[in-house]
Amino acid sequence: MKYFEELSKDFFTRFDKPHFPSEPESLYEPAEYFLKLGGKRIRPVLCLMGNELFDVIHEHTWDLAAAIELFHNFTLIHDDIMDKAPLRRGMPTLHEKYGGPNALLAGDVTLVRAYDYINNIPESFLHRIIHIFNKTAKEVCEGQQIDMDFEKMPNVTLAGYLNMIELKTSVLLAASLKMGAIMGGAGGGNQEHIAEFGKNLGLAFQIQDDYLDAFGDPAKFGKQVGGDILANKKTFLFIKAMEVATPGQQKQMQQLLGSDGQDKVPQMISIFASCGVDQEARVLMDSYLQKSYQHLDDIAVLSNRKGPLLKLAEFLVKRDF
Amino acid sequence: MKYFEELSKDFFTRFDKPHFPSEPESLYEPAEYFLKLGGKRIRPVLCLMGNELFDVIHEHTWDLAAAIELFHNFTLIHDDIMDKAPLRRGMPTLHEKYGGPNALLAGDVTLVRAYDYINNIPESFLHRIIHIFNKTAKEVCEGQQIDMDFEKMPNVTLAGYLNMIELKTSVLLAASLKMGAIMGGAGGGNQEHIAEFGKNLGLAFQIQDDYLDAFGDPAKFGKQVGGDILANKKTFLFIKAMEVATPGQQKQMQQLLGSDGQDKVPQMISIFASCGVDQEARVLMDSYLQKSYQHLDDIAVLSNRKGPLLKLAEFLVKRDF
Repeated sequence: MKYFEELSKDFFTRFDKPHFPSEPESLYEPAEYFLKLGGKRIRPVLCLMGNELFDVIHEHTWDLAAAIELFHNFTLIHDDIMDKAPLRRGMPTLHEKYGGPNALLAGDVTLVRAYDYINNIPESFLHRIIHIFNKTAKEVCEGQQIDMDFEKMPNVTLAGYLNMIELKTSVLLAASLKMGAIMGGAGGGNQEHIAEFGKNLGLAFQIQDDYLDAFGDPAKFGKQVGGDILANKKTFLFIKAMEVATPGQQKQMQQLLGSDGQDKVPQMISIFASCGVDQEARVLMDSYLQKSYQHLDDIAVLSNRKGPLLKLAEFLVKRDF
Repeated sequence: MKYFEELSKDFFTRFDKPHFPSEPESLYEPAEYFLKLGGKRIRPVLCLMGNELFDVIHEHTWDLAAAIELFHNFTLIHDDIMDKAPLRRGMPTLHEKYGGPNALLAGDVTLVRAYDYINNIPESFLHRIIHIFNKTAKEVCEGQQIDMDFEKMPNVTLAGYLNMIELKTSVLLAASLKMGAIMGGAGGGNQEHIAEFGKNLGLAFQIQDDYLDAFGDPAKFGKQVGGDILANKKTFLFIKAMEVATPGQQKQMQQLLGSDGQDKVPQMISIFASCGVDQEARVLMDSYLQKSYQHLDDIAVLSNRKGPLLKLAEFLVKRDF
């Protein structure tokens, strides 16, 4: 049983190579550039861990892991175009560097390449894997669309928000673990439990991310505090505060949305705190984390095999803030 | 053995239904809208004809045909974005009607949906079909990229142009026939011959399209005469004329590229005619058509089974102008 760090190294070793031919360079060079921007490769490693929880890693789980990472990069390339994002991992996004049409097409070919790797998987797994892969891909598209729709809406319900982050983020984490589990020969019940472990962990992680934007320690968080507030993002904190705030606070929040003043961030954080949504976020995060652990517990394998997944969950969702 | 028209009707009957769930409407309504714009559905019907040349149509060839048509629509949606095209089949393009981000995402989900239909195909065909499908998809992306690159280049070679139209147009026609043939149980040699039949037919059709833009009968052509000339497209006629024109004519052609004058079209056509590239186009088109027929001849099935494909080729590439 390998831990995240070790499997991550193994995956990097195999994945860190060209995935496209050299010609036409105008198509494939942008696609390679984007893959070289790096990232933590969490999803493919989850796939490997999902396999190893049940059995030694199948030789073609490495192909599946590569497909998952390529798919994730395809979504990032296209999301960056849709969001007009200038930077990705501190470097120019693909459309900034190569123009929109080239970036769009590089994203397309990255998705097709993902299906190439999937097609290396033995026939006996293929229908099941493609079914989950496609279902997840459509859900991720739905999540991105709903996220874009939310930007134009004055109000978003908490249920709507949780559904959106589940689709946009959690389903791919869940599916990565589940597809890995299938490659490891897991039965139906165990597949569902590991998927639910991943889904709830993803939700806990996202709520934590929302929380840290306003209440995190800037030294530890690694992002600009208040970035979501400056971008007028409808995070858990904002949506929940809108629900419970006094009419006066609600009015102030609406005004802050339209403002670019220096005290926008501290004022919004102060409303969040007075509404108690920091505490609400911690409660919700903890409830997702508990659900996640429960599903990990319920997987019918020897508990000492679960160490790496447990440690990864603890690493991703910290409770010491 | 059914002819194109009849198979086309059968395909319409099956394909003319919703391909996506209703929610989220902002994602799936644009995707459905685009499919409802119609089209001749040539590629899926070629797939069905490729199957029927060898055996009765396999029940899952209908799924493959649907996948091919969805893939083709995905490329049109994204090409329209890249080309900033305002109209498709006389109606607003997807990005015009719904905005770029929604159109991009609707294209993505249309491609994923194509793989859903492919995943209905029995395991025993799956690896071979996905291999060809992905290879073709990447080639179509390459063709689109090269076409975009050509727009920015002062000179394009004839070999480069022929390679581009092969990738952008012909490979999908070839692959549609070949994948259908595989579903019909065709052997390796027959698969190659039917693919070459489709590839050469596609090339003949594209050269004919270039020819008709300048020399077609407006009443029969159905498009504006000189549309390619007005758009400064580097068609076969333009590239070949540039090769053989006198220095004076070459200079005039370059000047016409930069002009929007009323006599741009007649002047360019007059240069084409004086260079004899109309005749060159007919010779090249005829040579592709002959190759196409030769490969159809070489397919080892009873020749009376080939009637529908022969008739379709004659219909697509007319020689009576």
